[in-house]
Amino acid sequence: MSTARACVLVEPNRVEIWDVPVFDPEPGGALVRIVAGGVCGSDVHIMSGEAGTMPFPIILGHEGVGRIEKLGAGVTTDYAGVDVKPGDLVYWAPIALCHRCHSCTVLDETPCDNSQFFEDAKKPNWGSYADFAWLPNGLAFFRLPDGASVDAVISLGCALPTVLRGFERCGSVRMGDTVVVQGAGPVGLSAILVAKLAGAREIIAVDMHDNRLAIARALGATATISLKDSPGERRRQVYDRVAVNGPDIVVEAAGVLPAFPEGVDLAGNHGRYIILGLWGAIGTQPISPRDLTIKNLTIAGATFPKPKHYHQALHLAARMQADYPLAAIVSHRFGVSQARDALTATASGSVIKAVIDPDLN
Amino acid sequence: MSTARACVLVEPNRVEIWDVPVFDPEPGGALVRIVAGGVCGSDVHIMSGEAGTMPFPIILGHEGVGRIEKLGAGVTTDYAGVDVKPGDLVYWAPIALCHRCHSCTVLDETPCDNSQFFEDAKKPNWGSYADFAWLPNGLAFFRLPDGASVDAVISLGCALPTVLRGFERCGSVRMGDTVVVQGAGPVGLSAILVAKLAGAREIIAVDMHDNRLAIARALGATATISLKDSPGERRRQVYDRVAVNGPDIVVEAAGVLPAFPEGVDLAGNHGRYIILGLWGAIGTQPISPRDLTIKNLTIAGATFPKPKHYHQALHLAARMQADYPLAAIVSHRFGVSQARDALTATASGSVIKAVIDPDLN
Amino acid sequence: MSTARACVLVEPNRVEIWDVPVFDPEPGGALVRIVAGGVCGSDVHIMSGEAGTMPFPIILGHEGVGRIEKLGAGVTTDYAGVDVKPGDLVYWAPIALCHRCHSCTVLDETPCDNSQFFEDAKKPNWGSYADFAWLPNGLAFFRLPDGASVDAVISLGCALPTVLRGFERCGSVRMGDTVVVQGAGPVGLSAILVAKLAGAREIIAVDMHDNRLAIARALGATATISLKDSPGERRRQVYDRVAVNGPDIVVEAAGVLPAFPEGVDLAGNHGRYIILGLWGAIGTQPISPRDLTIKNLTIAGATFPKPKHYHQALHLAARMQADYPLAAIVSHRFGVSQARDALTATASGSVIKAVIDPDLN
Amino acid sequence: MSTARACVLVEPNRVEIWDVPVFDPEPGGALVRIVAGGVCGSDVHIMSGEAGTMPFPIILGHEGVGRIEKLGAGVTTDYAGVDVKPGDLVYWAPIALCHRCHSCTVLDETPCDNSQFFEDAKKPNWGSYADFAWLPNGLAFFRLPDGASVDAVISLGCALPTVLRGFERCGSVRMGDTVVVQGAGPVGLSAILVAKLAGAREIIAVDMHDNRLAIARALGATATISLKDSPGERRRQVYDRVAVNGPDIVVEAAGVLPAFPEGVDLAGNHGRYIILGLWGAIGTQPISPRDLTIKNLTIAGATFPKPKHYHQALHLAARMQADYPLAAIVSHRFGVSQARDALTATASGSVIKAVIDPDLN
Repeated sequence: MSTARACVLVEPNRVEIWDVPVFDPEPGGALVRIVAGGVCGSDVHIMSGEAGTMPFPIILGHEGVGRIEKLGAGVTTDYAGVDVKPGDLVYWAPIALCHRCHSCTVLDETPCDNSQFFEDAKKPNWGSYADFAWLPNGLAFFRLPDGASVDAVISLGCALPTVLRGFERCGSVRMGDTVVVQGAGPVGLSAILVAKLAGAREIIAVDMHDNRLAIARALGATATISLKDSPGERRRQVYDRVAVNGPDIVVEAAGVLPAFPEGVDLAGNHGRYIILGLWGAIGTQPISPRDLTIKNLTIAGATFPKPKHYHQALHLAARMQADYPLAAIVSHRFGVSQARDALTATASGSVIKAVIDPDLN
Repeated sequence: MSTARACVLVEPNRVEIWDVPVFDPEPGGALVRIVAGGVCGSDVHIMSGEAGTMPFPIILGHEGVGRIEKLGAGVTTDYAGVDVKPGDLVYWAPIALCHRCHSCTVLDETPCDNSQFFEDAKKPNWGSYADFAWLPNGLAFFRLPDGASVDAVISLGCALPTVLRGFERCGSVRMGDTVVVQGAGPVGLSAILVAKLAGAREIIAVDMHDNRLAIARALGATATISLKDSPGERRRQVYDRVAVNGPDIVVEAAGVLPAFPEGVDLAGNHGRYIILGLWGAIGTQPISPRDLTIKNLTIAGATFPKPKHYHQALHLAARMQADYPLAAIVSHRFGVSQARDALTATASGSVIKAVIDPDLN
Repeated sequence: MSTARACVLVEPNRVEIWDVPVFDPEPGGALVRIVAGGVCGSDVHIMSGEAGTMPFPIILGHEGVGRIEKLGAGVTTDYAGVDVKPGDLVYWAPIALCHRCHSCTVLDETPCDNSQFFEDAKKPNWGSYADFAWLPNGLAFFRLPDGASVDAVISLGCALPTVLRGFERCGSVRMGDTVVVQGAGPVGLSAILVAKLAGAREIIAVDMHDNRLAIARALGATATISLKDSPGERRRQVYDRVAVNGPDIVVEAAGVLPAFPEGVDLAGNHGRYIILGLWGAIGTQPISPRDLTIKNLTIAGATFPKPKHYHQALHLAARMQADYPLAAIVSHRFGVSQARDALTATASGSVIKAVIDPDLN
Repeated sequence: MSTARACVLVEPNRVEIWDVPVFDPEPGGALVRIVAGGVCGSDVHIMSGEAGTMPFPIILGHEGVGRIEKLGAGVTTDYAGVDVKPGDLVYWAPIALCHRCHSCTVLDETPCDNSQFFEDAKKPNWGSYADFAWLPNGLAFFRLPDGASVDAVISLGCALPTVLRGFERCGSVRMGDTVVVQGAGPVGLSAILVAKLAGAREIIAVDMHDNRLAIARALGATATISLKDSPGERRRQVYDRVAVNGPDIVVEAAGVLPAFPEGVDLAGNHGRYIILGLWGAIGTQPISPRDLTIKNLTIAGATFPKPKHYHQALHLAARMQADYPLAAIVSHRFGVSQARDALTATASGSVIKAVIDPDLN
């Protein structure tokens, strides 16, 4: 059995590059050679330990595009019924659903009660900061449509599926809606793109970084607001652009606690506030329940995209790559052995999207 | 022009009984002789000044059943197209919609931008703590179906329309749902009745008062929990009765701030928390946004029922009066001149529902 | 009292130009000077008598943009709460809602049970093939936003409100949907525009006329199919462009009976077939109910837009007039005295959209 | 390897009783001893060949309750995550989903593109007219809750899941709705029960057979109409009981073509017509598309329940068995070797529900 490189988190804040075995695929599974492993903001929290205890050592990386090296017994199609063969590019949903638990079968909801996020680094493993990913039976992967750009697909990583999931669960953007998006990282940029495609009338992005706001405009934001302005000034700018009733939808994609009460305040009458970024920040904020009744306001959170959202995201990116600068969102590339640098850069906020490219070293 | 009695709030906490003129109805309007004026919990807040400044002096009472004394020019039907004539019993929605503002026409939402809640006590007036109510053109009233009990109709006052509005806006109870209701005053009791009729599997009522919980059970609650138990004990009792995922729906009908974080905590995975009672309590509570994402939770508030919700409530009460002890919810009666006592009794929590009955004195 | 011209349908197929009185507006109403009266396909059916018996003589025209000549007592805003004054341009919904019938109040649905479509030509009258329209109290009108093109607004007449109503009632186009539109007259073109703005992936227009299909492409159709091709060939062309499951949505905007079974056949698995054009064609077509179960198919019809749909249409046209050639849809103009020619031309199918322009003669 | 009896359809209209091998369960699967095999109306069509060509020889029976004889490797729970062990009673969804085709993953819809309805009678086989059923890996089964009556569960067979699926896809019964159900066989009776539990105000059942109508009343029908009355008389009886706008929902559960145009005619303004029974009847009926636009009518069909609908049906039956005479719907029992008689009796319409009970002979 051959070996290959993988970026292993041995314990919090301790990243090492290991040589790990390359396992043959199991029946129903697939072995893929990584072409691009997405560096997600949550990887930073996993590394630091903020995201909770993990079954260390683990191979990092839950976003990936790869080339099929070998298919497991019985596999002739991807999870959308499309024929696949070695050499094809695929994109995957990083959590296999068991299809025999209460959440899967009765509720038709994610997360699956038997979700396994990570596997021991020494075992067959689907982490994407590596030369290879071993996709187990049941882990949904999808063939890239012909002509799809790998960078366009990986640029919005798991953020675009998260946004598609969020709008499905919490109500979609309707043609003519006015939308405010808090935060213009991958989740916020995905929300802007989806709002644009769904016919939103106004899309107002709020962020600290000018380079993010520039991409926000390129993806469909009709206005941008700097976080450097005061909350009152931000509110004024929003209400200057939307009708007197306020925004129809506010999307939280900032991931920081103070965004929460500000979003409740910004959301308009009869509006919706959709919480997508705040899955990791521990803590509370003071909220007035009266704001909900008086404004007829709905606040909804969602997380854990389903495989179908990855499929939707893949095809949406492939269709839009010519019209929107998706590939350009990938601002930095690192080899497998530079994965620690990728995490550091992502943590600093200086990058919009970094990817692990095994060809680099 | 004759005069009649009315209970007037002259300034906060100063209630007087006045003789006021009995005006002829305007074209499109109606004059009704009050049979039962409902005493609503919000009247207590209006009296105390907590509900904000009012155009004093005002005639109190926004819930009413009356007998048509005289119809305005051109009026031959109620607002559902049913023929009416003097002598018929009617029930009304206390706020006329203008049908020519942004909320009415564009949004199809309440409140109407031109809502007028109260009128000067010396002018034609629709307050129901009085011998007569003058219903202006545009204020929707509905004929009681034959055989409807006045007490059954007034017993849930504006609470039942509020609940019907809330479930319409925030998502209805589905057959088989598990529901927790915080508070068993009129709003909570209405939520229990509606949940029961919609096929909820479990309906768990939480309140401080045993007499309210007894009625809760009579209206469909499958279990009751005393607020005297600790929050942890209350949670344990709820989770003992519902599936491991927690309640599908929690309804806030308590009107007190601490109910808010407890409701967020009680609400189950993929659940909904519907805020109906907390329109009047000023203040914030600490809420963790992460609870929304991790639980895929939706929190929604609503207020201001539409005329159709009053129509639905009227017919629902009339249909259910034989099967459920609705009329028995009316626990206390007061004459017009005793209105102050009615408010005091309602404020004390000793009554479930009080009504003003002009025949009493 | 002065008089002005109006195009009067005296009996089926007998159109005359009359001098009629110009009445002052009633309280709550408005008098407007017609700038553009839209000629709708249904006017042809009204003229021929196919649309049923009318209260002859009547003034034709239910689509209009006009300039406020005089406002009725008490009127300071349009029906969306926007300030208006004489000289302002307005667009209106041609049927006043009574707001006190079963449909208006209980169902919140159109048509209103007390709808009055036409008024005797000798009485105050809102027909738009005339120099003036007298808008009664309760007939919703909306001020054109500054800069709105009269032609862009009138070009899709009552068709765009009809489509907005249809999608609201029958389910909207979702981002990524594949849509087939049968017929590229004003209703079909409106459906194409709305589908485009809502993010449809494929929009396939089917029509007999090349000039209509050219506009269809300009409004967002991604492919067009000629009705001159055989049904089998049309089906092949549709299925070549959409996924194997078939179109998500088929919109009937053809108004002819054979479109009905073809639409049922074209509609894809789990799809929707929305019937908007077939309100006037009398007759049946053979339909297999098994197609509905096996395909999980929904077929839904809708008609009678609400005032809010006219408001939405107005603002949508005004927002889109710079990006789409809406004004160019108006292909022919006729003076009031040429109204008969306008109807003849519309009946022939040689025009896409004709308008009555009182300035022409 | 031991053998056991199974009722085999060798070719259309040729039923034989065979001794077939009893196979060990595969990993992920289960072997169950049949306690009750439901005889479904569609089995009659399968036997006669009307339902299309089958991979003969096949073992009949897609409805079943059985006792776990042996669990396959790795199986410790049912498909809702409930612990199971040999001896437990289970109920199953007869079609395994692949979870890796377009319908399963992208659409989240049934039927699965890789559905396998029947297997060769000589191979491991899940047909329920037999002593044993071999449930393959992926075929969802659910443990009966303690105390559940086998007869109550099997009485509504696949009809109750079909109805739950239909209401989920086509819109559920809302509290206060008026409902007409065409046909009071298992599908119609299931629709009546579900409508009752969801709070329908009126439920009107139409059928030819008095014994079925008697059960319809016991399950919640508020009125029954005999098919022996003329269509005009039936319509009059329906409209006498519902509001002037007509029924909110009509459910087709008759399975015969003439029901289709009658249902379109009966359905009220703004109503829904849900087609559940007409999946097997080949042919067309004349339908006027104008009925859909003028009435704002929606017609929707659905078929192929998901595993979750079987789970819902199981628990609904278990909860309701004490309040409704579900078990009494099972009117006839036959041994495995009498399966032909069961089919003949079912075809005759003389039974409401027959079951195969292997203990009988």
